[in-house]
Amino acid sequence: IASKLPNVGTTIFTTIGQLANAHNAVNLSQGFPNYDPDPKLLELVGHAFKSGYNQYAPMQGALSLREVISEKIENLYGHCYHPESEIIITAGATQAIFTTISTFVHSGDEVIVIKPAYDSYEPAIELFGGVVIPVALEGNDFKMNWEKFKSAISSQTKMVIINTPHNPTGSIWSKKDMLKLQEILKGTNIILLSDEVYEHIVFDGAKHESVAKYPDLASRSIICSSFGKTFHATGWKMGYCTAPQQLMQEFQKVHQFNVFSVNYAIQIALAEYLKNPAHYLHLNGFYQNKRDYFLDAIKDSRFKMTPSAGTYFQLLDYSEITNEKDTNFAERLIEEHKLASIPISVFCGTDYNKRFLRFCFAKTNNVLDQAAEILNGI
Amino acid sequence: IASKLPNVGTTIFTTIGQLANAHNAVNLSQGFPNYDPDPKLLELVGHAFKSGYNQYAPMQGALSLREVISEKIENLYGHCYHPESEIIITAGATQAIFTTISTFVHSGDEVIVIKPAYDSYEPAIELFGGVVIPVALEGNDFKMNWEKFKSAISSQTKMVIINTPHNPTGSIWSKKDMLKLQEILKGTNIILLSDEVYEHIVFDGAKHESVAKYPDLASRSIICSSFGKTFHATGWKMGYCTAPQQLMQEFQKVHQFNVFSVNYAIQIALAEYLKNPAHYLHLNGFYQNKRDYFLDAIKDSRFKMTPSAGTYFQLLDYSEITNEKDTNFAERLIEEHKLASIPISVFCGTDYNKRFLRFCFAKTNNVLDQAAEILNGI
Ligand SMILES: CSCCC(=O)C(=O)O
Ligand SMILES: CSCCC(=O)C(=O)O
Repeated sequence: IASKLPNVGTTIFTTIGQLANAHNAVNLSQGFPNYDPDPKLLELVGHAFKSGYNQYAPMQGALSLREVISEKIENLYGHCYHPESEIIITAGATQAIFTTISTFVHSGDEVIVIKPAYDSYEPAIELFGGVVIPVALEGNDFKMNWEKFKSAISSQTKMVIINTPHNPTGSIWSKKDMLKLQEILKGTNIILLSDEVYEHIVFDGAKHESVAKYPDLASRSIICSSFGKTFHATGWKMGYCTAPQQLMQEFQKVHQFNVFSVNYAIQIALAEYLKNPAHYLHLNGFYQNKRDYFLDAIKDSRFKMTPSAGTYFQLLDYSEITNEKDTNFAERLIEEHKLASIPISVFCGTDYNKRFLRFCFAKTNNVLDQAAEILNGI
Repeated sequence: IASKLPNVGTTIFTTIGQLANAHNAVNLSQGFPNYDPDPKLLELVGHAFKSGYNQYAPMQGALSLREVISEKIENLYGHCYHPESEIIITAGATQAIFTTISTFVHSGDEVIVIKPAYDSYEPAIELFGGVVIPVALEGNDFKMNWEKFKSAISSQTKMVIINTPHNPTGSIWSKKDMLKLQEILKGTNIILLSDEVYEHIVFDGAKHESVAKYPDLASRSIICSSFGKTFHATGWKMGYCTAPQQLMQEFQKVHQFNVFSVNYAIQIALAEYLKNPAHYLHLNGFYQNKRDYFLDAIKDSRFKMTPSAGTYFQLLDYSEITNEKDTNFAERLIEEHKLASIPISVFCGTDYNKRFLRFCFAKTNNVLDQAAEILNGI
């Protein structure tokens, strides 16, 4: 068999996760909380399974859930997506991203990907014969270079993928960034895929700059988001995406034949739970506390850090400790020190030579303490 | 935007389902039961959600579930799939089918599809630039013409898609069919995608002929199956597929970036529930009773019928009633008679001119009675 993805191996989250388990390591690698969703939400889920929501959901998702998502977006970002035709519930944000790329990327199309980038984007682009045009964030603070971005655009550019709050760097884009992006894309037919799965996790009083806030961006965008990240339920694999009808109509053609629909009972529970905005608005503070707890616990270590501005990831700079490559150091951290993290070179490209590891701080204080003790001893 | 699927609309299951709802029709169209899963299974699910299985499952699926699937297949079909490397849990069989086509169909590849065919196959093939080579089942009893099949194979044939028990006709393949298929494919590199979602629903003492029973077929096959169809839980969107490691390795590359993983708690519950084979082995009898109940109730109607041999679908021949096209008659049945079914021309192709509608008999007797009363009055 001729592989369509000859250079693709197993995702880093699986390989590192397996290594972490094999060594019984404290696991701050893959991005998931080690605590449960709100008992109230779990109760709603239990109730929905017992209330007969066990057969196919509507293909686009439960209407009640799409309605409450529409309200949320209108309240937070001032844009109205029609529940009937502009919102689809997906099997996690990953499926929304894969389906978006499936829908719009033709063979030979260029897709601009800002690096480091989440590891699912590029294989999906490659699968459809698209060409990845990487634009690297610059310096140790991973700043966006808009001039470089602009010059990466060509007549072949079909799509741009952005991600704020940004995994793995924990940086966020400002209003200025969004306006810059809007200005550059003006007059083009470029489709924007906006991965906003950490929309409810931004710190220090900053506001999430959703593409939905910018009409000229929103009109060309598919926005992907995640219930798993927001409600401590990554294992449910529930997400959604929004887009103007003209784009959503094409997305739906693929979605219906990829998964058709997603778990009905959980949708019904989420529809009820989302009615109370406090259920997601408290997350900024909740995760800021976790970030601060973690950083405070390792402030005397030899790791250098710029506090994460969003997501539940923290990069640590280990350049004062060793000059090893991040993949080596991450492996050694697991095997010798029993602590798992993610080397970020896997999201970057071949010429990457920085010295960072990514740690997930969506963990109970007890686990953060264990991790800090290890980090302080290195 | 240039559509990648210009001729694809909304799936028939959504359009007919919406029409049925709008007319408050008795709904025997889309294939789902109107009753719940076993309370025991629902209890296991409830328990798993309360036992901390709310974060990412392993990418390939819970090992305990893969192990019990492996045992089931070995016991029923005599083939051993290794739980670690030859079984993946999917977001329904539809995702398994889509991902299989994604993984193996390159632009220009020919894929043989036996018509009528489930409506997700062809758009997926088209999305990847594959060429559908249809082979039509023949006559009013939808017989396979193996000579025609053989002559449809060319040097460009990458894949063959088969489906037994067959949706929508309710026919099943015999040992003779399987041996014929095996003989024809011998010596080729053709990949077989075997859609066996109704494997546990065959009637009148027949045995399901899984591809897994035929080593020369199994070695080139991805077999897709469904927990939703088997356990009256289509809304959970849980399925799985099996394949030899060499094929599964490629499948996994796409799967991990399409959905990554699927609902963990439900997997844990299914793993426990599947330990008792009676939980699926009783289905043959259960659905045979439903088929017989339904056919008996309409035996004096003007519809002609050959009892379904498998699946929970029954074709009814309406040629004595009207010469209308099936799409028209299906619509009129909903609008005038308040009964929804599926016109099967949508699974067939342009030159189809038979007079059949498909009825799903996975319904309580009460609903089957209502449907029968309507059918008897036509
Ligand atoms: C789908 S597994 C990866 C989870 C995640 O978002 C991350 O760790 O970056
Ligand atoms: C995924 S919706 C279709 C359900 C089904 O298998 C059918 O009705 O044929």
